[in-house]
Amino acid sequence: MHRLGIDIGGTDIKIGVIDEQNHVIDFGKIPTLAQRPWEEIIRDIIAAVSPFIEQYAPLSIGIGSPGRVNPKEGMVIRAGNLSFRNVPMARLFEEAFHLPVALENDANCALIAEMKAGVCQGFTEALILTLGTGVGGAMVLNNQLYSGYNFRAGEFGHFVVQLHGHPCKCGLEGCFEQYASASALIRDTKAAILEAPGSLLASLGTQGVDGRTPFLAAQQGCPVGEKVVAEYAYRLAAGLNSLQFIFQPQCIALSGGIAKQGDYLIERIFPHLLPEVNVRVSSFSGHGGLIGAALLPTL
Amino acid sequence: MHRLGIDIGGTDIKIGVIDEQNHVIDFGKIPTLAQRPWEEIIRDIIAAVSPFIEQYAPLSIGIGSPGRVNPKEGMVIRAGNLSFRNVPMARLFEEAFHLPVALENDANCALIAEMKAGVCQGFTEALILTLGTGVGGAMVLNNQLYSGYNFRAGEFGHFVVQLHGHPCKCGLEGCFEQYASASALIRDTKAAILEAPGSLLASLGTQGVDGRTPFLAAQQGCPVGEKVVAEYAYRLAAGLNSLQFIFQPQCIALSGGIAKQGDYLIERIFPHLLPEVNVRVSSFSGHGGLIGAALLPTL
Repeated sequence: MHRLGIDIGGTDIKIGVIDEQNHVIDFGKIPTLAQRPWEEIIRDIIAAVSPFIEQYAPLSIGIGSPGRVNPKEGMVIRAGNLSFRNVPMARLFEEAFHLPVALENDANCALIAEMKAGVCQGFTEALILTLGTGVGGAMVLNNQLYSGYNFRAGEFGHFVVQLHGHPCKCGLEGCFEQYASASALIRDTKAAILEAPGSLLASLGTQGVDGRTPFLAAQQGCPVGEKVVAEYAYRLAAGLNSLQFIFQPQCIALSGGIAKQGDYLIERIFPHLLPEVNVRVSSFSGHGGLIGAALLPTL
Repeated sequence: MHRLGIDIGGTDIKIGVIDEQNHVIDFGKIPTLAQRPWEEIIRDIIAAVSPFIEQYAPLSIGIGSPGRVNPKEGMVIRAGNLSFRNVPMARLFEEAFHLPVALENDANCALIAEMKAGVCQGFTEALILTLGTGVGGAMVLNNQLYSGYNFRAGEFGHFVVQLHGHPCKCGLEGCFEQYASASALIRDTKAAILEAPGSLLASLGTQGVDGRTPFLAAQQGCPVGEKVVAEYAYRLAAGLNSLQFIFQPQCIALSGGIAKQGDYLIERIFPHLLPEVNVRVSSFSGHGGLIGAALLPTL
């Protein structure tokens, strides 16, 4: 008994097959080439999915898409920088494969994976924060995904954590994304390097700065890297505490690139956290969205 | 057909009778004297309620209490600076009056009033922000009050809007309450007066500063008062925008002392608001909690 999941991203589209233990037993990936018309993208996904369908005869197909998704109608309303506009995604896959198809927002899929097979199992109230280029989120309340009346709720990257702070592409100032995303961490790491060109952080940065650079420097004892990580941890904790006061979740999962710092990250944010915050790092190493998509038809 | 509502506050306990049009047709108030044992407080409430019961023979009693409330069990778990600890409030009133009794958190009552009889009628997703000494909140999602698994969700005064900001009594730094409450506005008004002792704001402040003082000064053209109000409006808008991104509510009601500034306040926050934020000032002039409490048994 297998189920197929598709995780549509801005760069790649991931396709995977999971077994009854929710393990990914086969996996493939195609480039999204996001600027193309949506018809081309979907044609490529269908072509890439076909051999998996033939080999595994899955019970169902689940699809995670970025942006605004109407799961009841199986419709992608908008999808960020992809060209999807009111695309009847579920119907197109049903017609192609004659299988039950479910569709959800990608962050919702990632949270479903944590609820059903990951670090949020056993809870009825849980959130996920995705710490990548941006900061995304999703929520399960009363054991149900909550997306608001317009399928846009859960944008945890855009609550304000700094009045008059960094301008954000959403039009506001001081959004959490401007302080807790990988992009924010890279920005602040580069600034720290400019201020301390003789530091270990600066020497690590000569090969290019990414979200791992300050963590590497800090773990090697560099006080400049340490300071960048400490401030990042403080900011992330501020956001987690805020979400705790707003929702009182039983569990908050962290995923995305920064979450790969795992226990080290948790240790650094822990001193700033309210005692009731139960934050847990996703263990799906980037496959959460795929697994959650595959599980959608089981909800 | 009448219903009786009780709104327990830290200073006063309000008792009111509403008619079928949700109008308050009779009203009374007793001092809480919050330091007393809860048995005394409840005895006084029952004594004050009795004549209303005799005169109006209401169909039901609804009670709003501060703090953590378990509405299913009719239990006040904790109530801020009141002595209530696991008080079976609903049962005590049922035994006293042999009427159906419902109990909820006071901010939840205020939102119910807006949903059923006030500015949030016709919506299924709505929030309330109470702008008083502190900042409180409540939420209706999918047309249901949501309080989290532990009856503590909706503390909109305690998401962080300023990293490393003003320390808050909750233990965090930079909470929204430290920037959007009447107390915060009074703090900032006093600071502005110290900096501009010759201003109209300062002369108005000689009779004592409250949440109205900077609004009075601004409305009379004082640039110092104007600046305080402008910054307050910016901060309040930041919180409203944050809640919009998190929940996508169809309506956000404002109540509490500061909300009495009404249209003037709305005009000042409007330029900072996301276009989709539908913020409305409560029209219940302080009786929302009472009306919502009275309506609880109709839910």
